[in-house]
Amino acid sequence: MLKHKKRKLLVSPPLIIAGSFLCLIALGTILLKLPFATTTSVSWVDALFVATSATTVTGLSVFDPGTTLTLFGELVLLFLIQCGGIGTMTFAVAILLLLGKKVGLQNRIYLQESFNQQSIGGIVKLTKLILIFVLTVESVAISLLTLHWIPTYGFSDAFYYSLFHVVSAFNNAGFSLFADNLMGFTSDPIVNLILSSLFIIGGLGFVVVVDIFQKKSFRTWSLHTKMMVIGTIGLNVFAAITLFLLEFNNDSTIGKMSLWDKIFTSYFTAVTPRTAGFNMIDYGQMEDPSLLFTMFLMFIGGGSASTASGIKLTTFMVTLLATFAFFRFQEEPSLFGRSIRKETVIRSLAISTVSLAIVFLFTFALTISEKLPLLPLVFEVFSAFGTVGLTMGITNQLSNIGEVLISIVMFLGRIGPLTLFFILTKPKKVNYRYPYDQVITG
Amino acid sequence: MLKHKKRKLLVSPPLIIAGSFLCLIALGTILLKLPFATTTSVSWVDALFVATSATTVTGLSVFDPGTTLTLFGELVLLFLIQCGGIGTMTFAVAILLLLGKKVGLQNRIYLQESFNQQSIGGIVKLTKLILIFVLTVESVAISLLTLHWIPTYGFSDAFYYSLFHVVSAFNNAGFSLFADNLMGFTSDPIVNLILSSLFIIGGLGFVVVVDIFQKKSFRTWSLHTKMMVIGTIGLNVFAAITLFLLEFNNDSTIGKMSLWDKIFTSYFTAVTPRTAGFNMIDYGQMEDPSLLFTMFLMFIGGGSASTASGIKLTTFMVTLLATFAFFRFQEEPSLFGRSIRKETVIRSLAISTVSLAIVFLFTFALTISEKLPLLPLVFEVFSAFGTVGLTMGITNQLSNIGEVLISIVMFLGRIGPLTLFFILTKPKKVNYRYPYDQVITG
Ligand SMILES: [K+]
Ligand SMILES: [K+]
Repeated sequence: MLKHKKRKLLVSPPLIIAGSFLCLIALGTILLKLPFATTTSVSWVDALFVATSATTVTGLSVFDPGTTLTLFGELVLLFLIQCGGIGTMTFAVAILLLLGKKVGLQNRIYLQESFNQQSIGGIVKLTKLILIFVLTVESVAISLLTLHWIPTYGFSDAFYYSLFHVVSAFNNAGFSLFADNLMGFTSDPIVNLILSSLFIIGGLGFVVVVDIFQKKSFRTWSLHTKMMVIGTIGLNVFAAITLFLLEFNNDSTIGKMSLWDKIFTSYFTAVTPRTAGFNMIDYGQMEDPSLLFTMFLMFIGGGSASTASGIKLTTFMVTLLATFAFFRFQEEPSLFGRSIRKETVIRSLAISTVSLAIVFLFTFALTISEKLPLLPLVFEVFSAFGTVGLTMGITNQLSNIGEVLISIVMFLGRIGPLTLFFILTKPKKVNYRYPYDQVITG
Repeated sequence: MLKHKKRKLLVSPPLIIAGSFLCLIALGTILLKLPFATTTSVSWVDALFVATSATTVTGLSVFDPGTTLTLFGELVLLFLIQCGGIGTMTFAVAILLLLGKKVGLQNRIYLQESFNQQSIGGIVKLTKLILIFVLTVESVAISLLTLHWIPTYGFSDAFYYSLFHVVSAFNNAGFSLFADNLMGFTSDPIVNLILSSLFIIGGLGFVVVVDIFQKKSFRTWSLHTKMMVIGTIGLNVFAAITLFLLEFNNDSTIGKMSLWDKIFTSYFTAVTPRTAGFNMIDYGQMEDPSLLFTMFLMFIGGGSASTASGIKLTTFMVTLLATFAFFRFQEEPSLFGRSIRKETVIRSLAISTVSLAIVFLFTFALTISEKLPLLPLVFEVFSAFGTVGLTMGITNQLSNIGEVLISIVMFLGRIGPLTLFFILTKPKKVNYRYPYDQVITG
C-alpha cells in the first residue's frame, strides 16, 4: 500500500522537475565546496546559496564570482546555469504536455492543442530541438561578442568572457565575471544589445520562438505568440521611457551620462528585471519610484516555458484582460479576434495568488530573521522569486537563515507555483457540484 | 443627442453614489473652512483632506481634531461621518440591487436573489430599516459608555465623548477627540470591547446582520453570512495571536504592559485595521513584520455593503477558495455544501486587480511627490484605500499634492473599484464570442 503510493508519487512529472532541480543544486553545492573551486574557503550555506542561485538562473550571490571562484568553480557555475536553463525550457514544455494531457480530460485547464508531440518519444525529439536551438543561438552570439572583445582582452580572454556571459545571458542567469557586473559597459551599445537580445529571446519561451519561425505572418501566429511579442515590446518600451524619466536627474545612476548612454542604459535597466538580472546601474542608489517599478517588472517576469520566471507576462495580461472584460459585462476576455476561456482566467488568478502569497510570506519571515530595512528585503524577495538576481546590495549581509529563506524562494520561483502546488495537492476524483449560493464580493 | 447621453449618465446608480460623496465632501470642506469651525486657521487643502477623511470614514487627519476643531467643527465632523457611514450602507445595498437587476439579465455576475426589495419603494423601506438598526445600536452603546465614563468626566462630557466615539466606531471612522486616539485606554477593557464590538458589527454589513437576526440557526444562514462570520472570527483570532507574538518584546508598543493588557491591546490592534482605524499603540514604533501584517489586514477590510472598505473579506476568501479549487482540479470552489459561481470568482479577481493597481499607482505617485521613506508611504496608501486611518505618523508631513493624492485614494477606497469602474466603462451591448485560443500562463 505504502509502496504503491510511493511509486505513484515518484512518476508524477511535477515531482520529477522539482527532484531534478534539487539534485542539481545538491551536486552544485558539493562541487562549489571543493577546496579547488574557490580561492578562499566558503561555508556550506554560502555554497548552497550560490549553487541554488546558479541552478535556478537567478544570479544573486553572497560573494563575487569573478574573484572568489577558481576557473573550475566558474565552470561549475556555468554548467549549473546551462543545465538549469535548458532544464527549465525542456521540463516546462514537457510538463505542459504531460499535465495538459492529464488535465485536459477533466476540464481543459491546460493547453495541449498547441503541441503535436505528446508521447515520451515526442519529448525526446523536443529536447533535441531545444538543444539545437540553444546551441545555435549561443554559438552565433559567442562569435560576435568574441570579435568585439578581442581588441580589449586578446583572443583567449575575449572568448572565455564571451562564452560565460552569453550562456549567462541566454539562460537569464545574470551572473557576470566582472565585479561590478555590467556597470562598466554603459557606453558600449554592442555588449548591451547582444546580451539583452539574448535574454529577451531566452525569456520569450521556446513555444513562441518556434511559432515565429514556422509561421512567418503575424496573422497566422497563435494568440499566445501574439500576446508575448506585443506584450514584450509594449512593456519594454514603456519601462524604458519610465525609467529614463525617473532616473534622468539621479547623478548616482544615469544623471551624469551623455544622452545616448542614458537612453541605452535606461533600455537595459528596463529589460533586465524580466528576468535577466544583469545590472548597469547601482540599485542601492536608485530612486524609490524606480525601485517600486522594478519590483513590479520582476514580479511579471518573462514567458512561459522559458528561461525566465515571475508570474509570466501572459498571466499578467490575461488578468488585466479579464478585469476589463468583467467591467464591460463580457463573459470572457478576448484579444485579436480570439476569446480566452474562463479556465485560463481562473488559472491566472491561482498563479497570481500563490505568487503574491509566496512573496508576502517570505518577506514577512525575513523581516523577523534579518535586522535589515524592509525595502531592500522586499526587493530581494521579488528578485529571488522572479529569479532575477538584482539586489540593493544586501545579499552578503543576510544571516544564514536569511540565505536559506532566499534559496527557497529562488527554488519556488524557478519551479513555479503550478509545479509546487501539483506536488502538494491531489486531484479530487469526483467533480460533483453543490447548489450555487451567492457571495457578495467587493 | 448630447443631452440624451448626459441624462442617461446622470441616472446611473454608480454616478449617484460617487456624486453624493463628492457633494458631501464639498459641503464638509466649506463648513470646516468657516472661521468658527477651527481654533486656528486651516488651509483649503487641509479642510478638503479632513472633510474627505470624515466622509469616507477613514480617520486620517492632518491636524488633531480634539484641539484644532471647535465644538461646531467637531459636530460637522460627526455629521460627515454619520452621513458617510449610513450613506455607504444604504447606497451599497441599493446599488447592489439596482446593478444586480441590470447585470443579472446578462450574466448574473451580481446577486439579486439575496434581496426582495428591488423597486425604488423597496430601497426607501430598506433605508428606513438601516436607519432604525443604526440608531438602536448606537443608542445602546452611547448609554453604556456614558455610564462607564461618568465617574471620570462627569455627565455632560461623558455623554458627549460617548456620542462622538460611538458614532465614530460604528461607522468605522476611527476619529477620536483624544490627542493620542485610544492609546490611553490600553488598560480599559470596557472601552476596548464596546468600541471594537461596534466597529466589528458595523463592518459585517447590513445584509449579514439581517440574516443573523432573521434566521437563528447557523445552518440556515446564507453562504455569504457563514463566510463573513467564520472568516471574521478566524481572521481576528489569528491576527490577535500573530500581533501578540510579534510585539511581545517591543517596549515601545506592548512590551512593558501587564499580560492582560498585552492580550487586550493585541486583540484591539488585530481588529482595528479592518477598517476602524482607532489605535491603542504607536504605529511608528511597531516592528516591521507587524506593519507588513497590518497592511495585509487593511487591504482585506470588512464586509460588503458595510461601513468598512478594503477589497472585502469575501473577495479575499473567494480568491483563496478558487485558488485551492484550481489546484484540486475542481471547476468551481465550494464551501459549506454550496458552490460558488465562476462569475463570482472572476468578479473577485477584477476587484483585487483594480485594488492592487490603485495602491501601486498611488504609492508610485507619492514616492515621486513626497520626500518621505517608502514604508510609511505604502502604509498610508493601504490605510487610505481601506479607509482605515492608521498611520505611521506622516499624515501632517504630506505636501499639498500628497494630501490631494491621499484624498483621492480615500474616495476611491470608499466608493470601491466596482462603482469606480461602472462609472468609467460602458457595457458592450452584444455579447458575442470569438473562437477560443490557448494562452499558456504561469
Ligand atoms: K536571473
Ligand atoms: K476608518
